[in-house]
Amino acid sequence: MRIIKGFPIDSGDNYQLNVINLIKHAKRNFSRQEIVSRKIDGTLYRYTYRESYERMQRLANALISIGVKVGDRIGVLAWNHHQHYEIYFGLPGTGAVMVSLNLRLTPQDLSYVVNHSDTKYIIVDEDLINVAESISPLCNGIEGYIIITEKDLNDIETELQPVYSYEKLLINASSVYEWPNLDENSAYAACYTTGTTGKPKGVYYSHRNVYIQALMFAAQLPMRVNDIVLQLVPMFHVLGWSKPQAATYAGAKLIFSGKWNLDDIEELTDIMVKERVTVSGAVPAVFMAMLEFIRKMENKPDLTRTRLICGGSEPPIALMRGFWNETGAEIIHSYGSTEAMAITTLNFFKPWLEKELSEEELWDLKKKQGTIVSGLDVKTVDEYGNELPYDGKSSGEILLRGPWITRRYYNAPEAKDSFTGDKFFKSGDAGSLDSEGYLKITDRIKDVIKSGGEWISSIDMENTLMSHPGVLGAAVVGIPHPKWDERPLALVVLREGFKSTSKDEIREHLSSIFAKWQLPDEILFVDSIPRTSVGKLNKKAIRMEYKDIYIKNPK
Amino acid sequence: MRIIKGFPIDSGDNYQLNVINLIKHAKRNFSRQEIVSRKIDGTLYRYTYRESYERMQRLANALISIGVKVGDRIGVLAWNHHQHYEIYFGLPGTGAVMVSLNLRLTPQDLSYVVNHSDTKYIIVDEDLINVAESISPLCNGIEGYIIITEKDLNDIETELQPVYSYEKLLINASSVYEWPNLDENSAYAACYTTGTTGKPKGVYYSHRNVYIQALMFAAQLPMRVNDIVLQLVPMFHVLGWSKPQAATYAGAKLIFSGKWNLDDIEELTDIMVKERVTVSGAVPAVFMAMLEFIRKMENKPDLTRTRLICGGSEPPIALMRGFWNETGAEIIHSYGSTEAMAITTLNFFKPWLEKELSEEELWDLKKKQGTIVSGLDVKTVDEYGNELPYDGKSSGEILLRGPWITRRYYNAPEAKDSFTGDKFFKSGDAGSLDSEGYLKITDRIKDVIKSGGEWISSIDMENTLMSHPGVLGAAVVGIPHPKWDERPLALVVLREGFKSTSKDEIREHLSSIFAKWQLPDEILFVDSIPRTSVGKLNKKAIRMEYKDIYIKNPK
Repeated sequence: MRIIKGFPIDSGDNYQLNVINLIKHAKRNFSRQEIVSRKIDGTLYRYTYRESYERMQRLANALISIGVKVGDRIGVLAWNHHQHYEIYFGLPGTGAVMVSLNLRLTPQDLSYVVNHSDTKYIIVDEDLINVAESISPLCNGIEGYIIITEKDLNDIETELQPVYSYEKLLINASSVYEWPNLDENSAYAACYTTGTTGKPKGVYYSHRNVYIQALMFAAQLPMRVNDIVLQLVPMFHVLGWSKPQAATYAGAKLIFSGKWNLDDIEELTDIMVKERVTVSGAVPAVFMAMLEFIRKMENKPDLTRTRLICGGSEPPIALMRGFWNETGAEIIHSYGSTEAMAITTLNFFKPWLEKELSEEELWDLKKKQGTIVSGLDVKTVDEYGNELPYDGKSSGEILLRGPWITRRYYNAPEAKDSFTGDKFFKSGDAGSLDSEGYLKITDRIKDVIKSGGEWISSIDMENTLMSHPGVLGAAVVGIPHPKWDERPLALVVLREGFKSTSKDEIREHLSSIFAKWQLPDEILFVDSIPRTSVGKLNKKAIRMEYKDIYIKNPK
Repeated sequence: MRIIKGFPIDSGDNYQLNVINLIKHAKRNFSRQEIVSRKIDGTLYRYTYRESYERMQRLANALISIGVKVGDRIGVLAWNHHQHYEIYFGLPGTGAVMVSLNLRLTPQDLSYVVNHSDTKYIIVDEDLINVAESISPLCNGIEGYIIITEKDLNDIETELQPVYSYEKLLINASSVYEWPNLDENSAYAACYTTGTTGKPKGVYYSHRNVYIQALMFAAQLPMRVNDIVLQLVPMFHVLGWSKPQAATYAGAKLIFSGKWNLDDIEELTDIMVKERVTVSGAVPAVFMAMLEFIRKMENKPDLTRTRLICGGSEPPIALMRGFWNETGAEIIHSYGSTEAMAITTLNFFKPWLEKELSEEELWDLKKKQGTIVSGLDVKTVDEYGNELPYDGKSSGEILLRGPWITRRYYNAPEAKDSFTGDKFFKSGDAGSLDSEGYLKITDRIKDVIKSGGEWISSIDMENTLMSHPGVLGAAVVGIPHPKWDERPLALVVLREGFKSTSKDEIREHLSSIFAKWQLPDEILFVDSIPRTSVGKLNKKAIRMEYKDIYIKNPK
């Protein structure tokens, strides 16, 4: 799109939108606001924005003292804690780039990320030293490791070298730091996406991207100084879905969840209740576990002020209703991706729909991905790139464009097909937009089953399978078929106690939602379903394994 | 400030922040939201964002059809109504610049604005044709007038020519318009400031300025799709204090107040109650009149969701308490200026202050101008430009910098002293910042009274005078004094029924707040106080008139 220059103006236009300003202004206005950090031993550490800000300044000085320069890439391998928050600002505040390292990647993928980004130092939790050690031999460019630990370095055994202590560096650094006036288009951080195919791809966010998205998120949620934000989403996942930045803009209280997994859900729920959390975010599985715990509680917590941003996949209605009925908390579905900085939709009701729709219809609406937030351009297109109507039916690939949507992968010319000529990001998701602008994702484009010219959503079918009481896991893929091009295949894992469930029973369950021609030709009961390193269904592997099933034996 | 370039990135950075996107996205997400417009006869016209958007597209085509080009300046002389809202987007949506014309200026000042901005067309309300006629002979560059009227042009008598009908132009224009991708640094609108000295000065806002401020305002208030916004502030005043833009971003319902003055306050209050308004803004005098009416109502309205942004001057505690007690509405003080796009502070309580302060202390705090909103840099400086501490005492000039603060006046090199070398705008206001970041304005720098090296706030003294039951009006100025440099002089207008009030009585009333050395050497009872064309106290004229009073007769 050609940019048209109008009447020129010099009215503040070179005032840079950089993330440093978020924290500078928060320190000015909210210095006494509290920040809480859950330590490895489960105890809660508390300090304030002012103290955090002072440590960010020390961190910036410390990084410069060991040789970090403007534009350097610095890796971070850490859980959710106050030091990670300090790094969010102190590190990019030197002009360097924070490279978020996903601690769940394989050493091969993780070392690829480190090497591809030319990462110079890695800041690593004591608890994650083994992860750093696993990639260290594969990464020649690393000049040192900064260990976040309360211990003396001498008491830590590691092959990493040279090593620095995060806390020691801060103690020895000055707390006076003059933040640079960073060009807003400079990189703030990098996150690498990992799909089921190919190498991780680098998405580099500019200060401007992050700044504008933080404002959007604070505005649309909204988030304010009296909000209390529990950071559950790993901070190495798409900048923690932007909550730390939006909370900082708003001056909200922040609570970092520490190292945790689903076994800690009772403790985290307890924190949510005791600290009167008003905002959090996670994938449905986390909130499911939380709800299960809450159901067992004698005195139900009052979470009527609480909004839980649920992303990653569609939250089941039972989950949303459950939270609403048990606690008053509202689950708000959001859709995004690494390339789109996690937040591209939010599902809020519009006042006129609340008047017009029945309760059931509203719950159905709540399952959709929501409306594309103001600030972003969107369209759904058919396979020829023609824009589809907002009719709630026409399904096509979702294209996104806007101030925080990436326009290229870093140094990955082979992936340039992910972007259109007019600078839209091709999300790879198939979906439809209705007349009110609500998006409904039907599938990943590559997972859509194309049968006789019609599309069948693998995700819808998986969700329906999962709603059967006997089904523990399910995957649906399209398999080449001599007559219909592709036909669906379902893999199903049955729960203990339901092992005798028959294929006909499953097929009948599906029939309540799907037309006969949409039903899978074959349903296979399996012990487990292949998953990727980040836990997603590995449909590529499934398709490969069963690629001949309908060719050899078409029905 | 030198801009430091970090690691380069091309991640959406040339996606332009322009105001057109606010309305495009609002149309996508909130097309059924209602817009209400109060007509000259008092009836309410209702339509939707979708219909408004269609008319904006027609307007853009219509303007182009009569010769408006990218970069042209187009004047607007209109009350608050839906057409004015259409102009807010349709006009800058052509790439032209909207020049807001203050209908209360003298023909001399108004024609200066039109000529200085090279305004090519003027869009004018039928009701304001006489204002346009008064400047028409003084403005040679105008190529035509577009009259907003429901009448046929033949039924309107006017000397203006050529004239077009706004409605006819829209009817004849296509409703299909491809919005240009405007460079974010292009001018969106121009507002001219009028002080007590010199010619009006032009502040040109870029699309980026307006876009970022709209996001900030929506975030900080916050404003959402279930808000109902009554636009009372004249839309020719600093873009209506940004409420139309922020409401559009949020998709809130908008109500335009039409042509009104204080005599219409009952009708407007009625609209506020019936339409369940949740957000509005005005100067204290408007809310005072509203409160007076509400006090007389038998059934007090429930405005517990309502936030009233009060600017222009400090709202009295009695006003804020009154609204709170009678209706539950919260008055929120905000400070700004044309150069700072109206909103630079908002007075919200922080949760810890709500816990720590007594009710009285909180009301006192509420009178302050509030904290400088996140996104803006601020400092108070002494006369040598040294930054003053955040101690709530040290008073100096307030300097502002940020993404919507102007950095120069258009084509006014004589006014370049209003900006510092490091690009701060010198507000001309004197004030102090406390440890929590709350700003307290003490005076206009040029109105501060400098007596024996100490400062006396003329505003504080005027407010104290005004709180005396017998005082209808008051002005306090510094007058040259042979010994003390300057000494205060107070002019007082007494109310009917209080004409016998003595100077001693007034002096005693002041003594409750002011030290003896601060009291005015002379108090003069007058029939009226000189004011400027926009209704401000004309202190320059007062100082001139009484300049010799202490030199001839020092006390």
